[in-house]
Amino acid sequence: MLNRVRSAVAHLVSSGGAPPPRPKSPDLPNATSALPAAPPEKPRSPPARSRGGSAAPAKTVEARASFSRPTFLQLSPGGLRRADDHAGRAVQSPPDTGRRLPWSTGYAEVINAGKSRHNEDQACCEVVYVEGRRSVSGAPREPSRGQLFLHQGLCFYYWGLFDGHAGGGAAEMASRLLHRHIREQLKDLSCWSSQKEVTHESLVVGAIENAFQLMDEQMARERRGHQVEGGCCALVVVYLLGKVYVANAGDSRAIIVRNGEIIPMSREFTPETERQRLQLLGFLKPELLGGEFTHLEFPRRVQPKELGQRMLYRDQNMTGWAYKKIELEDLRFPLVCGEGKKARVMATIGVTRGLGDHNLKVCSSTLPIKPFLSCFPEVRVYDLTQYEHCPDDVLVLGTDGLWDVTSDCEVATTVDKVLSAYEPNDPSRYTALAQALVLGARGTPRDRGWRLPNNKLGSGDDISVFVIPLGGPGSYS
Amino acid sequence: MLNRVRSAVAHLVSSGGAPPPRPKSPDLPNATSALPAAPPEKPRSPPARSRGGSAAPAKTVEARASFSRPTFLQLSPGGLRRADDHAGRAVQSPPDTGRRLPWSTGYAEVINAGKSRHNEDQACCEVVYVEGRRSVSGAPREPSRGQLFLHQGLCFYYWGLFDGHAGGGAAEMASRLLHRHIREQLKDLSCWSSQKEVTHESLVVGAIENAFQLMDEQMARERRGHQVEGGCCALVVVYLLGKVYVANAGDSRAIIVRNGEIIPMSREFTPETERQRLQLLGFLKPELLGGEFTHLEFPRRVQPKELGQRMLYRDQNMTGWAYKKIELEDLRFPLVCGEGKKARVMATIGVTRGLGDHNLKVCSSTLPIKPFLSCFPEVRVYDLTQYEHCPDDVLVLGTDGLWDVTSDCEVATTVDKVLSAYEPNDPSRYTALAQALVLGARGTPRDRGWRLPNNKLGSGDDISVFVIPLGGPGSYS
Repeated sequence: MLNRVRSAVAHLVSSGGAPPPRPKSPDLPNATSALPAAPPEKPRSPPARSRGGSAAPAKTVEARASFSRPTFLQLSPGGLRRADDHAGRAVQSPPDTGRRLPWSTGYAEVINAGKSRHNEDQACCEVVYVEGRRSVSGAPREPSRGQLFLHQGLCFYYWGLFDGHAGGGAAEMASRLLHRHIREQLKDLSCWSSQKEVTHESLVVGAIENAFQLMDEQMARERRGHQVEGGCCALVVVYLLGKVYVANAGDSRAIIVRNGEIIPMSREFTPETERQRLQLLGFLKPELLGGEFTHLEFPRRVQPKELGQRMLYRDQNMTGWAYKKIELEDLRFPLVCGEGKKARVMATIGVTRGLGDHNLKVCSSTLPIKPFLSCFPEVRVYDLTQYEHCPDDVLVLGTDGLWDVTSDCEVATTVDKVLSAYEPNDPSRYTALAQALVLGARGTPRDRGWRLPNNKLGSGDDISVFVIPLGGPGSYS
Repeated sequence: MLNRVRSAVAHLVSSGGAPPPRPKSPDLPNATSALPAAPPEKPRSPPARSRGGSAAPAKTVEARASFSRPTFLQLSPGGLRRADDHAGRAVQSPPDTGRRLPWSTGYAEVINAGKSRHNEDQACCEVVYVEGRRSVSGAPREPSRGQLFLHQGLCFYYWGLFDGHAGGGAAEMASRLLHRHIREQLKDLSCWSSQKEVTHESLVVGAIENAFQLMDEQMARERRGHQVEGGCCALVVVYLLGKVYVANAGDSRAIIVRNGEIIPMSREFTPETERQRLQLLGFLKPELLGGEFTHLEFPRRVQPKELGQRMLYRDQNMTGWAYKKIELEDLRFPLVCGEGKKARVMATIGVTRGLGDHNLKVCSSTLPIKPFLSCFPEVRVYDLTQYEHCPDDVLVLGTDGLWDVTSDCEVATTVDKVLSAYEPNDPSRYTALAQALVLGARGTPRDRGWRLPNNKLGSGDDISVFVIPLGGPGSYS
């Protein structure tokens, strides 16, 4: 098996990053057929520890990730080294020659400023063919009234951004497999015929939701054999039959900029935004807190000398604050604590949805974090047919490296500024826009750091951006 | 104790409905001091069973409710009988003489068309004085920077609508006591001084949230002694220091109509809108389902012959639908089933938030429903100081009897039509508007039923409406 993995790596490097041939079987591949693995070199840095938490056994994950950037970047070995250089932080985009991404999608990325050894973001952009499920007998099914599509199948367009933490393994695996899980789930649509209150749209949403769960289960199953440690946020777009589905599990973000107007297409899942869900779980399943944590929140850490005094708190049911008398168990560490980017679940992780993290434990403890992390995305639907889109209308996806230092409005301003500098039918304008967004968030090296024009610090995180044009899907590809 | 209760009833009737004098103690009264109880007469009908569920022991609750309408209606014994007449369904409002409700609030109500023996809605409108909490020593506290108010106390304005089910006892109790719980909670604000991330607003929200919980706990404690059976939805408005707090637990609704624009100030909590919360509870605590129910939802009831077949389903994490193979436990009755007004939790109750219902069991079973019902309201805040309100801007509260047959837009149209027929400074215009809304939802008797002008059926439910003018709080009172 190791030989098979090594030859996949060799193929990947020698072909300048082109993917290994897809398995012909419609079944989902296991990780070995999709993941390149450890080449015989040593990691050059300590284990990555982004967002806190117990780091993965670093050697194999780290080393593997060093060879993996999105295949559509078509990086040569030299290009791969430049993409991996924290000092230069060169912005990477698909080459302007050869085959473009579907819909002339723009893409750009840059590695972090040193917070982890490699770029732990991953990306995927594919046109995926869904074969209709045949009946048990193998004979083509007769079409029936209300069926979404027949046995001949259909295609969907797919974009995914994956922001890894505690290693690049989970993001890598998700970028190669999640769309295949979605494809498998969408096959069921061929069995569908009109039923009470179940719409096409709700079936696609359900297919995406289930695909996230199956992807997460696959990571749990295969993590030991393939060292897929760590976890990742996932932000995914599916275009199918006139509708754009945006599925988000984590703290990446998607917005549509349409005629200058901003339409949010996702929300971030963090210990602060998901406080009540986390507290409810801790309240209903106190064994998950191991006697070490309290599910209650206090404005500050309670001190032993405050026993018996009144203090503000809130529980899983409350959005406001009220007073309670401090008891012994209130002295435990709070399940949710910290503010903004420093907010943590069990003092460990700063994001509450995503894939993987099955081995993640509370620091110096055997308490698992995973029960509090949800792999389920929130899916928002945007009907492309309800509005006449122009070439300047775009869907922007970015990992938190972009949004930590760039507001929605600033993105809309950049959209306007960059796109108006190009002819509307110039397909390279969306890549130029993605690059401008990444550069704007990274900044330039000055005064011992990466700085923005206003002299504030730029993002030291990995930054990845897709710009998906909405004006005429398919017409640019 | 019984004598004390009977004398309270006698006082209530003889004084034309005026409330008994308030206890001087700042402590909360128990139910005996606030609830009139059973007069020595028999109930005239079978136990009420609105929204399904095991009815309360009917005798005392039913009989007690027959004597109880909001005190501000100032009903004489004859008026009380007319308000209780299902055949005439006369609309009741406070008399146009004497003391008006605060802010010249309009109010109207009508009894149901026979679905329960008495009007199970209740209402309350009060100006409530909150005494500041003194320090332990009893000495007045020194004011400190950032304190919301000092030991001299403050006032808040309060409106409450309570829609009872399975008896009028819970609505009755809540209408008399909930604002006192809020008052107690708000006393804590006098201890408050500025702390990280805790705002005035979040303290008022927390006070209201806690008051709902304490009210519910009081009902649980005192239900045996005072036969407070059944439950109620609660929709409550608090005005304090320039802000309007709307707290809703149930399926009543509040909207602001401002310059013709509709601003929703609540949402309804039903088995459909709370499906995922209910399913999550059933999933995490399967013992609550007693082996009789499944937490999964299917588009229709699964048949035993479908074992092993694939069927659409959704669980607590999903908003879309996906397929699963039917197993034995999927044949259990679904935790959430039915659509629209027929949706039920455990085939029993059609509303998922409110007060009371501590004795409610699944029909022909000992399984309690209460763990699935939440007493916690959702609180929305509207800042009155952010907009220059005119006398035609109003906050409309209604029980579901109004909203079942009247859309938000129709209410806004009626607001415009009725208010424009009165002088802006005529304080009776808001009562006229409340009456018009109730009449419009009730309809007129025709073709063996209460019918609307379009010949559709009017609401046969109890209907209660508050119209609260926002243009110049206090200036009309």
